[in-house]
Amino acid sequence: MPVNYATPAPEALFPVAGVRLGTAEAGIRKKNRRDLTLIEFAPGSRAAGVFTQNRCCAAPVTLCREHLAGGSSIRALVINTGIANAATGEQGMRAARDTCDAVAKLLGCKADDVLPFSTGVILEHLPVDRLIAGLPAAQADLAADHWHAAAHAIMTTDTVAKAASRRITSADSLITVTGISKGAGMIRPNMATMLGFVATDAGIAPDLLQKLAKEAAEASFNCITVDGDTSTNDSFVVIATGASGCMIASEASPHWPGVRDAVIGVATELAQAIVRDGEGATKFITVKVGGGGTAAECRLVAYAIGHSPLVKTAFFASDPNLGRILAAIGYAGIADLDAAGVRVWLGSRVGNVSEEVLVSENGGRADSYREEDGSRIMQAAEITVRVDLGRGAAHAIVWTCDLSYDYVKINADYRS
Amino acid sequence: MPVNYATPAPEALFPVAGVRLGTAEAGIRKKNRRDLTLIEFAPGSRAAGVFTQNRCCAAPVTLCREHLAGGSSIRALVINTGIANAATGEQGMRAARDTCDAVAKLLGCKADDVLPFSTGVILEHLPVDRLIAGLPAAQADLAADHWHAAAHAIMTTDTVAKAASRRITSADSLITVTGISKGAGMIRPNMATMLGFVATDAGIAPDLLQKLAKEAAEASFNCITVDGDTSTNDSFVVIATGASGCMIASEASPHWPGVRDAVIGVATELAQAIVRDGEGATKFITVKVGGGGTAAECRLVAYAIGHSPLVKTAFFASDPNLGRILAAIGYAGIADLDAAGVRVWLGSRVGNVSEEVLVSENGGRADSYREEDGSRIMQAAEITVRVDLGRGAAHAIVWTCDLSYDYVKINADYRS
Repeated sequence: MPVNYATPAPEALFPVAGVRLGTAEAGIRKKNRRDLTLIEFAPGSRAAGVFTQNRCCAAPVTLCREHLAGGSSIRALVINTGIANAATGEQGMRAARDTCDAVAKLLGCKADDVLPFSTGVILEHLPVDRLIAGLPAAQADLAADHWHAAAHAIMTTDTVAKAASRRITSADSLITVTGISKGAGMIRPNMATMLGFVATDAGIAPDLLQKLAKEAAEASFNCITVDGDTSTNDSFVVIATGASGCMIASEASPHWPGVRDAVIGVATELAQAIVRDGEGATKFITVKVGGGGTAAECRLVAYAIGHSPLVKTAFFASDPNLGRILAAIGYAGIADLDAAGVRVWLGSRVGNVSEEVLVSENGGRADSYREEDGSRIMQAAEITVRVDLGRGAAHAIVWTCDLSYDYVKINADYRS
Repeated sequence: MPVNYATPAPEALFPVAGVRLGTAEAGIRKKNRRDLTLIEFAPGSRAAGVFTQNRCCAAPVTLCREHLAGGSSIRALVINTGIANAATGEQGMRAARDTCDAVAKLLGCKADDVLPFSTGVILEHLPVDRLIAGLPAAQADLAADHWHAAAHAIMTTDTVAKAASRRITSADSLITVTGISKGAGMIRPNMATMLGFVATDAGIAPDLLQKLAKEAAEASFNCITVDGDTSTNDSFVVIATGASGCMIASEASPHWPGVRDAVIGVATELAQAIVRDGEGATKFITVKVGGGGTAAECRLVAYAIGHSPLVKTAFFASDPNLGRILAAIGYAGIADLDAAGVRVWLGSRVGNVSEEVLVSENGGRADSYREEDGSRIMQAAEITVRVDLGRGAAHAIVWTCDLSYDYVKINADYRS
């Protein structure tokens, strides 16, 4: 069960003008599940994406980069679950190209206008014939209000579908931003995450759209980690159809602040949903590191805490074994860190009630800290670790989850 | 249960001339267990150590560095379990100094001649009065053949005591090297590990001893990881009493190659024993990375594989989900890695029977690879992952273990 997250109801996911979605059962890996998703965009739609930095990136990621580099408009996304088409060599590249060709033929566009995405097991070949055979059914299913079904169809080890939607009124125009994401394991995005798609019916100039995709990824998917494993398939794409009639040519546009906030807001909801549904998660942990000399060193510390299996199991046990957090700060990699200058707080949020206590200062336990305070806070499902490095003004944030028996169970059983 | 490791019998741990060991119940954290160890060395003994690079290092680590920097000879080690005396500020430093003063008074030496070590819970204060009250009993217990008891007394979450011993005949002299270590979690040593002590009755010149301690740590403790968490208390110390009468003044000494090999060999046995007893371990995994441009990049890849919870849970499940290894290679941090040039083998050792199969080449699954071969090899308790990066001649090795339900259980329960 995810931590304080439920999929929005279908009617809470607003259709985006110029976007239709369809799903189908292609039998990629398992029978009787919708594992193929087609998302079609109106002519003139633009897309920008950021992708995994993993050097063993999947074939579809390579092809997405190619097609986006072409600068043409984008007419469709095609997404399969079950097989990641990663570490599949030349055969994998052919499978991804054949998929785009087949979609292009169906929709009457160029193969360059199609972006392919795959998620699932690595090192196994995509059954591309079955995928292509399933496309007509997905096309027949295309509808503007199928965001909810698409969010379900792209899941793998996810226990819950992830979606978010916002409508803004901007200078008398109604603009919609809706997105879906998937992911629960192999989550430590680096520039993007395992499949996140956000669409808006605003029109956005190509340079600005690319900037927005990067900024939104930095503020959302690039701040989450479940297990520290950067996927071979991480992809985050923002699509702007322009079908609302609002065109944003530059940052001076009156629509820009509202659309920018909505896209970043939807991306952040989707990213946090992945952590809330992190494999085996029972707690949602926010790690805020401030007082750093650089943002990079704050991120080092935040990820050291967020990745430590000792810290993560302590959260699972609701055990305020907070020395483990200090150990992680100490080994994070800041060579000249003065441990005596570091302060650490532990906080919780239960409903609308927030609480925070100072745990450590002057190189040791804070005089005011009481074990019973730590124990009470550790019981909460939403916990914040706040660190002040005492070195400067830079800061960083990481969202993560705990490490439970179920994490091991899920990953020991995944392929069987 | 550790993976293919049992504590040597008491009689297999050869006494080292000039060394006596004693243990006692001091009630540091729990009743009815020997938690205090005193190791006494003959006058004129020299020691060299390497210590954690964790910036939140423990008070005893700071004091060890001070005392070793003084260059005086070393007369005793004093070791407690239960409380790590880490993140304890000024009060922790006073506790460590008081401990050394008390040992010096008992043994009639200087406080600078005593090295203190602590292991256990971080962020709690050492009950130094109880520790000091226990010292006379430990002194009364001093004996040359108490290595076995000392190996037990320094354990924390270890399920088995760790010791190794060798005798070499070098140019008609009999030289002994015996050592003990402890550790099972918070194990990703950086320059040293959580308490490893190796003593020899050879005499070794101070510069050479320091070089040997560093070289032995690099080849042994610095190649292991259980959970990626670098401890606040990692300490590895080599003591040379000289009581055998063999003095090694330089690398030209005829005794040097034999003593060097014996010290590195004992250190490697002790380091591997920690991984074999890694928290919840059911498999012992050797990761060998070759063909690298630099040793540093080989270590990046080896640790990425060794730390990935997805790889570690696949080993626990005996599931040849080998795409996870390729993903780890891809995100290890070699920015210009050509995935098509990487080759990966999987191997096993059962008794004297070794087997190895090529898993991946040319950016995908090797044509010759059969899933049943991978499944068979993954059943073994000793597995080797061998990677050729195809970039150069550098190499690195890391020893690690799998990630099991029991890992979570042990760390969720540790303090309760």
